[in-house]
Amino acid sequence: MSALVTLVGDHQANAEVKAVYDDIRATRNTEWVNNFWRALANDPALLRRVWTDMKETMAEGELDSLTKELIYVAVSVANGCEYCIRSHSRAARKKGMTEGQLQELLAVVALASRTNSLAEGYQVPVDDAFK
Amino acid sequence: MSALVTLVGDHQANAEVKAVYDDIRATRNTEWVNNFWRALANDPALLRRVWTDMKETMAEGELDSLTKELIYVAVSVANGCEYCIRSHSRAARKKGMTEGQLQELLAVVALASRTNSLAEGYQVPVDDAFK
Amino acid sequence: MSALVTLVGDHQANAEVKAVYDDIRATRNTEWVNNFWRALANDPALLRRVWTDMKETMAEGELDSLTKELIYVAVSVANGCEYCIRSHSRAARKKGMTEGQLQELLAVVALASRTNSLAEGYQVPVDDAFK
Amino acid sequence: MSALVTLVGDHQANAEVKAVYDDIRATRNTEWVNNFWRALANDPALLRRVWTDMKETMAEGELDSLTKELIYVAVSVANGCEYCIRSHSRAARKKGMTEGQLQELLAVVALASRTNSLAEGYQVPVDDAFK
Amino acid sequence: MSALVTLVGDHQANAEVKAVYDDIRATRNTEWVNNFWRALANDPALLRRVWTDMKETMAEGELDSLTKELIYVAVSVANGCEYCIRSHSRAARKKGMTEGQLQELLAVVALASRTNSLAEGYQVPVDDAFK
Amino acid sequence: MSALVTLVGDHQANAEVKAVYDDIRATRNTEWVNNFWRALANDPALLRRVWTDMKETMAEGELDSLTKELIYVAVSVANGCEYCIRSHSRAARKKGMTEGQLQELLAVVALASRTNSLAEGYQVPVDDAFK
Repeated sequence: MSALVTLVGDHQANAEVKAVYDDIRATRNTEWVNNFWRALANDPALLRRVWTDMKETMAEGELDSLTKELIYVAVSVANGCEYCIRSHSRAARKKGMTEGQLQELLAVVALASRTNSLAEGYQVPVDDAFK
Repeated sequence: MSALVTLVGDHQANAEVKAVYDDIRATRNTEWVNNFWRALANDPALLRRVWTDMKETMAEGELDSLTKELIYVAVSVANGCEYCIRSHSRAARKKGMTEGQLQELLAVVALASRTNSLAEGYQVPVDDAFK
Repeated sequence: MSALVTLVGDHQANAEVKAVYDDIRATRNTEWVNNFWRALANDPALLRRVWTDMKETMAEGELDSLTKELIYVAVSVANGCEYCIRSHSRAARKKGMTEGQLQELLAVVALASRTNSLAEGYQVPVDDAFK
Repeated sequence: MSALVTLVGDHQANAEVKAVYDDIRATRNTEWVNNFWRALANDPALLRRVWTDMKETMAEGELDSLTKELIYVAVSVANGCEYCIRSHSRAARKKGMTEGQLQELLAVVALASRTNSLAEGYQVPVDDAFK
Repeated sequence: MSALVTLVGDHQANAEVKAVYDDIRATRNTEWVNNFWRALANDPALLRRVWTDMKETMAEGELDSLTKELIYVAVSVANGCEYCIRSHSRAARKKGMTEGQLQELLAVVALASRTNSLAEGYQVPVDDAFK
Repeated sequence: MSALVTLVGDHQANAEVKAVYDDIRATRNTEWVNNFWRALANDPALLRRVWTDMKETMAEGELDSLTKELIYVAVSVANGCEYCIRSHSRAARKKGMTEGQLQELLAVVALASRTNSLAEGYQVPVDDAFK
């Protein structure tokens, strides 16, 4: 199925969009710009804000870049976003995620979903020590 | 507000429950058993299965134990489970999570929620390279 | 904390609201009208539609009334709605739900949350037999 | 689209995986092992824990096995998990769920989603009687 | 993939279903009845209640009809319902939604998802002024 | 209960935080800075990015500012974020939202949650006209 909007090709990109596409290419060291950005490019100011947020948030910090990708994938699984699961699990593999790490990640996500559900279902009161 | 069930105190615990409580205390090196386990103790077989799952899943593996806690907290935020956010952010701090790491974790969760929403909203088709 | 709107007391109820309140009392054989309906009463047409939907949907059918309450509670846990978990687990107990049934219900909800998360996380393709 | 991992065929299964596959076949009285388990088989310890949890949780208890399947389907709808909706609605039909029961189940799920949303939206305070 | 139930064609419709189909056609001024209603038609009483709710809720009121469609689309994005995103974004366009309005709508949805996640993640206490 | 982090008071604010607080005060024409921003202020770069995103996204555009607030509240209800429901329903009232509009908004949110659930539950295939 097609997107709700036209995906913006390179030749349709205005200057603001082109600048972001160029930065994506330079940052990732690839010619390829994936569909997510081409959809957002219909709203150039949004494209710029989201790309800036992505670059700043996912950069090496007190958490390394791979750990951040793992967290990103985990949240995408919890939110049920197929696009983001597929694109960011690929990004995580490029950053060195092993198959064993992917399996452990998914096991933790499933454990948390299970215990989240039990804490909610039993309406467990927060212990004083956690307040 | 109270839980939907009675929280099982030490003196009310049957042998199966007592064995799990003892293992929690030994594993965590504390006398304290928090409310989550005391609620589950109404269903001793469930208590045992969930505790076993927790111990095996959260152990050091190809992902270290702190990274697993971070993923756990992230999923709990995405699922909106207050109990789990509070109990596992505390656990993460005990394992060495810095304030800066907590902030970066929450920034990644919020970024993923934002982009998950955009991928869904624009109905972005999965690129062939991700299939 | 207070609701976003005023809870409509008996003396503030107009004729349309009063008719619904009376039907709630007659149907449930109690004088008590709980806060949910008193909040909806700010929008009398909505109140009437939701109450009608509740009565028709939760009535004995090919599924008995208790099974419907169990399903209702399960969905409320999955959606994380405290008000609905508390009000409908109480309704289920009034219809005969045992403590053992509540525990089994919550164990199934947690199992489904766990496997939903794994099916999503591994992006398991639907088998031809399920299509 | 393909799964994030290879689906483990019978000839690729190690002893631990083979034991679970055999138990699935014996328990369900069929030669067929569906994709969900073949994806999990990449992580044999997880496969074993999830299968054990499934067998113990879904067995006849104070709730009969069909009621448990109905609850499972309801939660999968609330969580939006297509794989689980399709596989477990099929399982429920095999256990005797009628078309009328499926319709009633889905009507209850939709009613609960509607009222969950209203309780949240109006921020209805929990009545003292429910605390 | 097919629906869980048969889609009810015009020739299979009983009187109650036919009456709703006719009203859909008259209200929307088109011969076309989309799949959603044809699935619900397996449960004629549900079909009638949902269609009535749709007509009454989406009618011009203190909010105009287009604003209601925008809210509907926004909720469908938040809930991750592809069918509803596609059908109601089309309805919104028919009612005059511009491409710029769609983009702004999606930007607000993504912003709210981001800040919802941060409020939850930081466990921000509600200010007294908001209680 | 307290937040996971210290709320940053005016005297604790560094220059970057102070600049955002000042802009919040100027933009909203009030001395008051609510808890959400004081929590984010622990991560000054995040505070700045989120505030900028808020200002740009919620400004008058092809959608007026009140319509954007309504969409924001609707998404917060769907996501179950109490803080955001309370803070942004208050903001919407300040921008002129009537009680009737709030009621209609919540009715649309509940309708969408109901039909989202039915489309998911029946696994309704997307009509060709919507693709």
